Amino acid sequence: MDVQELMRELHQGSESKIVMLVADGLGGLPIEKGGQTELGTASTPNLDALVKDNTCGLMTPVLPGITPGSGPGHLGLFGYDPLKYQIGRGVLEALGVEFELGPNDVAARGNFCTVDENEIIIDRRAGRISSEVGIRLVEKMKSIQVEGVELFLRHVKDYRFVAILRGEGLGGDVHDTDPGAIGKAPLSPTAAVPQSERTAELFREFIKQAGEVLKDEHPANMLTLRGIARRPNIPTMEEVYGLKSVAVAVYPMYRGLARLVGMTVLTEVQDTAQQLGALRKNWDAFDFFFVHYKYTDSTGEDGYFAEKVRQTEIVDGMIPGILELNPDVLVVTGDHCTPSKLKSHSWHPIPVLLAADTCRPDGVEQFNETQCIYGGLGQFESRFLMPLALAHAGRLQKFGA
Amino acid sequence: MDVQELMRELHQGSESKIVMLVADGLGGLPIEKGGQTELGTASTPNLDALVKDNTCGLMTPVLPGITPGSGPGHLGLFGYDPLKYQIGRGVLEALGVEFELGPNDVAARGNFCTVDENEIIIDRRAGRISSEVGIRLVEKMKSIQVEGVELFLRHVKDYRFVAILRGEGLGGDVHDTDPGAIGKAPLSPTAAVPQSERTAELFREFIKQAGEVLKDEHPANMLTLRGIARRPNIPTMEEVYGLKSVAVAVYPMYRGLARLVGMTVLTEVQDTAQQLGALRKNWDAFDFFFVHYKYTDSTGEDGYFAEKVRQTEIVDGMIPGILELNPDVLVVTGDHCTPSKLKSHSWHPIPVLLAADTCRPDGVEQFNETQCIYGGLGQFESRFLMPLALAHAGRLQKFGA
Repeated sequence: MDVQELMRELHQGSESKIVMLVADGLGGLPIEKGGQTELGTASTPNLDALVKDNTCGLMTPVLPGITPGSGPGHLGLFGYDPLKYQIGRGVLEALGVEFELGPNDVAARGNFCTVDENEIIIDRRAGRISSEVGIRLVEKMKSIQVEGVELFLRHVKDYRFVAILRGEGLGGDVHDTDPGAIGKAPLSPTAAVPQSERTAELFREFIKQAGEVLKDEHPANMLTLRGIARRPNIPTMEEVYGLKSVAVAVYPMYRGLARLVGMTVLTEVQDTAQQLGALRKNWDAFDFFFVHYKYTDSTGEDGYFAEKVRQTEIVDGMIPGILELNPDVLVVTGDHCTPSKLKSHSWHPIPVLLAADTCRPDGVEQFNETQCIYGGLGQFESRFLMPLALAHAGRLQKFGA
Repeated sequence: MDVQELMRELHQGSESKIVMLVADGLGGLPIEKGGQTELGTASTPNLDALVKDNTCGLMTPVLPGITPGSGPGHLGLFGYDPLKYQIGRGVLEALGVEFELGPNDVAARGNFCTVDENEIIIDRRAGRISSEVGIRLVEKMKSIQVEGVELFLRHVKDYRFVAILRGEGLGGDVHDTDPGAIGKAPLSPTAAVPQSERTAELFREFIKQAGEVLKDEHPANMLTLRGIARRPNIPTMEEVYGLKSVAVAVYPMYRGLARLVGMTVLTEVQDTAQQLGALRKNWDAFDFFFVHYKYTDSTGEDGYFAEKVRQTEIVDGMIPGILELNPDVLVVTGDHCTPSKLKSHSWHPIPVLLAADTCRPDGVEQFNETQCIYGGLGQFESRFLMPLALAHAGRLQKFGA
């Protein structure tokens, strides 16, 4: 039995409040053997005080050795098996520009490219044109009409955009048109399964018209499509857990992921500094609060160890304000590790701290990767975090008599 | 989704090298409560130095409480779910005499036995005849011809041999013919499923002829067949992981297990002393090196605690030579535990050490069973060792966007 099936059966009403503070990319590595990680280096008096009286552990985001993208990382945190619910690149790109994907939408990531007079790709990224140029070209393409469906186009960044088809009966299994190398012509969209034949045909029509629109441009005189995918059919947090949930996130992609699982998104939150106020203001209206902090990840991606340390300390500084609201359960963790040493996401287990009145002490006195090995939560897959949070919030009935 | 499906999807090319040093039967028990295990007693300065800067843990070979044979033990290490890929006794016996099983082969373990004038078994092991006698009898049986298939016979040891049928459309589900007790006649081979009817018939014909060949012998005047099985259809390490892999093993069974998963076997390695040289000589030609050391298991099986300690120290002595080759990932572990106290394989979790530049420190300073409890890898199933090794070797792409 799937754990979410159990959740549907066992969840019960409660006045309790759960806050999940996600420091994106939390958890790292020492630069040199024998050194400290970013979290081990950071001064985190509030987190340390919290872990001392509560419980911690380490979470495997997907499976041992698997490095997740942001999509699977967050789905796991929200209790959705990331191997069961896979989010296509096109869908994630649409979420990233805060496009509200509907159930009939198929999204593709688009790249402008340069082709020669024989329609052979000579630059897969069209000389990395600026966002200014990219925006103009996307606007120009909005003249395209594909019969029988609605077409939406949104610029993302530089040479990247997203193309969405909306209509009944579309399929998400269409192969990429990017041949993956220069010296080849863009591929024609082809369906991987019969149910996606029509979608492939619609994208072929779109590309044909786009070629006309772009033919006199330079260097962006053609495009390729990748990661064509439907919005996955995901049950909401309310359906699974009975939780009214809300996202207090600044970045579009994390808001989009929250929307995918049915969370309300506080779109008025434009800045990290507004997060605590928004949390306080919406405290009575929701049961579950997803608070997302981006910069522990982006500094890790950039390889800035010292800056990731400082961002971790900023996360620590958010704790007292959250505790003032007196949540029944406070979880602090990440969606995956982003060690500055690797300048990328990694597969290492993520430190996690759970604070509630029902925590059993585990003797850990500092919130860092090494100490979390000794935590009372042990090592577990992220998808079990939600059941643990619900249990500590008094939101799960007994299983069986 | 199976983890090996993920591996097929995520593996990427790399120049990195992975060495997996398997000390067979590593991990044991103290003889008396309060004492040390074999690994805890052994002086292992090289392993201790390695664990200090890297990471360790404990592996469950199959599931908690399950004691594996060598087959499932090694399949787990190579990342194959031992519950999914089961190796019949006959197949293992054929591997153990280095018979190269093909995809159309069905193998059975044979035992010589003694029957009386009414064909009732009076000794299931034919008085444990010597290998000398066994070899002669197997040679004599080579006159047997079974129509429509090739028959191969190999002596194993004492009263044991292996019989292999090779032909199209054979099935591996045929019941044992050993009735399991004296005072009964050998059973006739019967198929457990319709697809194995013909195979059962072919083995009946073989047994009929063997009865003729052996009838004037004493005490080995009949035989029984057990563990009749086809070679399992296992994808290769190259297919699953994209790894060119090689086995540096002395004993035929481990070479055979390596061949089952598509490894090249360095057949010129005849002795433990030749292993390091063979590793060095083949360093450029492969990505993954399975180095197998037998005597930590056999001394455990024999119940020689002190000798197992000494063999463990020999394994420790192999470390500097391996490190000179500068592998990107070095794994040191066992396929199962063989506590001298039990004189057999056991279900206890196996100590495992993983050394790579991307290891997170875990505070462990000695490589032994007790310290490994506190290792950063936690406790996990053996089949996740390969994903971890690949991740640390930079051979896995990110999952999802």
